[in-house]
Amino acid sequence: MTTAMVVFSGGQDSTTCLAQAMADFANVETVTFDYGQRHRVELDQAHRIATMAGVRAHHLLDMKWLGRLTENALTRAEIPISHAAGELPSTFVDGRNLFFLSVAAVLAKQRGIHSIYAGVCETDFSGYPDCRNDFIKSLNSTLNLGIDYHFDIRTPLMWLTKADTVRLMATLGKLEWYAETHTCYEGRRPACGTCPACVLRLKGFRDAGIPDPLPYITQ
Amino acid sequence: MTTAMVVFSGGQDSTTCLAQAMADFANVETVTFDYGQRHRVELDQAHRIATMAGVRAHHLLDMKWLGRLTENALTRAEIPISHAAGELPSTFVDGRNLFFLSVAAVLAKQRGIHSIYAGVCETDFSGYPDCRNDFIKSLNSTLNLGIDYHFDIRTPLMWLTKADTVRLMATLGKLEWYAETHTCYEGRRPACGTCPACVLRLKGFRDAGIPDPLPYITQ
Repeated sequence: MTTAMVVFSGGQDSTTCLAQAMADFANVETVTFDYGQRHRVELDQAHRIATMAGVRAHHLLDMKWLGRLTENALTRAEIPISHAAGELPSTFVDGRNLFFLSVAAVLAKQRGIHSIYAGVCETDFSGYPDCRNDFIKSLNSTLNLGIDYHFDIRTPLMWLTKADTVRLMATLGKLEWYAETHTCYEGRRPACGTCPACVLRLKGFRDAGIPDPLPYITQ
Repeated sequence: MTTAMVVFSGGQDSTTCLAQAMADFANVETVTFDYGQRHRVELDQAHRIATMAGVRAHHLLDMKWLGRLTENALTRAEIPISHAAGELPSTFVDGRNLFFLSVAAVLAKQRGIHSIYAGVCETDFSGYPDCRNDFIKSLNSTLNLGIDYHFDIRTPLMWLTKADTVRLMATLGKLEWYAETHTCYEGRRPACGTCPACVLRLKGFRDAGIPDPLPYITQ
């Protein structure tokens, strides 16, 4: 039990999870999913951060079938991103974390790994039902029963605010990794600074009183 | 709530589920998965039975990614089929029913369907952990939480023996559908009659005292 698997998007949350996993385990592997996301730059950034962090193995899995499964804004460029109050965000892929964690579990078993880190967070869950703690706990039991293997899904960010996450990364001494993380919904580097994802990220750093090392077009 | 979705392989069990679903619901849709199975003839048979049964829609989904995910005998022809006592059968695809039912759930939601039939059976579960009732119940809760939708997974064969299943089909008056079902691991029509799947099937009919309408090479 000396190795952990991190579900790794190359974003701020999963990079914080990577730092936490590397503090907790002697060996860490990362798994990144290509599901046809609009901001494909995150796949390159994920690889860059994994290399920089010195993970034992970085797995890139083709999950484009997931993008074909549901109509949604993250994978179909023609649907505009909207966040109308009370509605499910149009960025929602039904069961995305269900499929990510299930595939990660199959891979983890193949690699002899039991602990799986995921950067899901109920505090800022934005209406995504598959980020809730109850769902993760239920999925953990379901995977253990269905695959007949002991998985331990760890979600260190579950109850943290964005500011708490930034502070955690400072404590872990890996703030500089954030310069390579990708957040911007527009897929821009430097980041746009104005899309909902950038605005949420910037607020977290501001609330934590820690500067964001990521370059922005506007700030 | 007048429509049900049946996870439909074209085999004997899921065809019995289809008959049960058509007895319970005014409208039925079927979903069949192409996961790169060795016996692809079952895809044609599934389509044939769905047409014959008069289902409202038959969905064929490409899940070849599942076959690439794990090394196993059903999808990799070079691995011989083995059933050594005490071992997990080499035909096991880790989490196969997990992925089938999760994808079926996403599709069902898109179609406005809540009830999903699956022909899993703990009685003859042959060491497959994802056929057990505890797993199915856990997955049902996980899907409801993760997709935020009410699914009702129905497994009418869960506690039936193969003979009970044959008797159920007789009661439902659809025994003739069995002539089109595919069971044989060798992918043969007429069926080989000697592979473990054929032997199990034939025993069920013998125990029920009902003749199998499927043609066999040897019997």
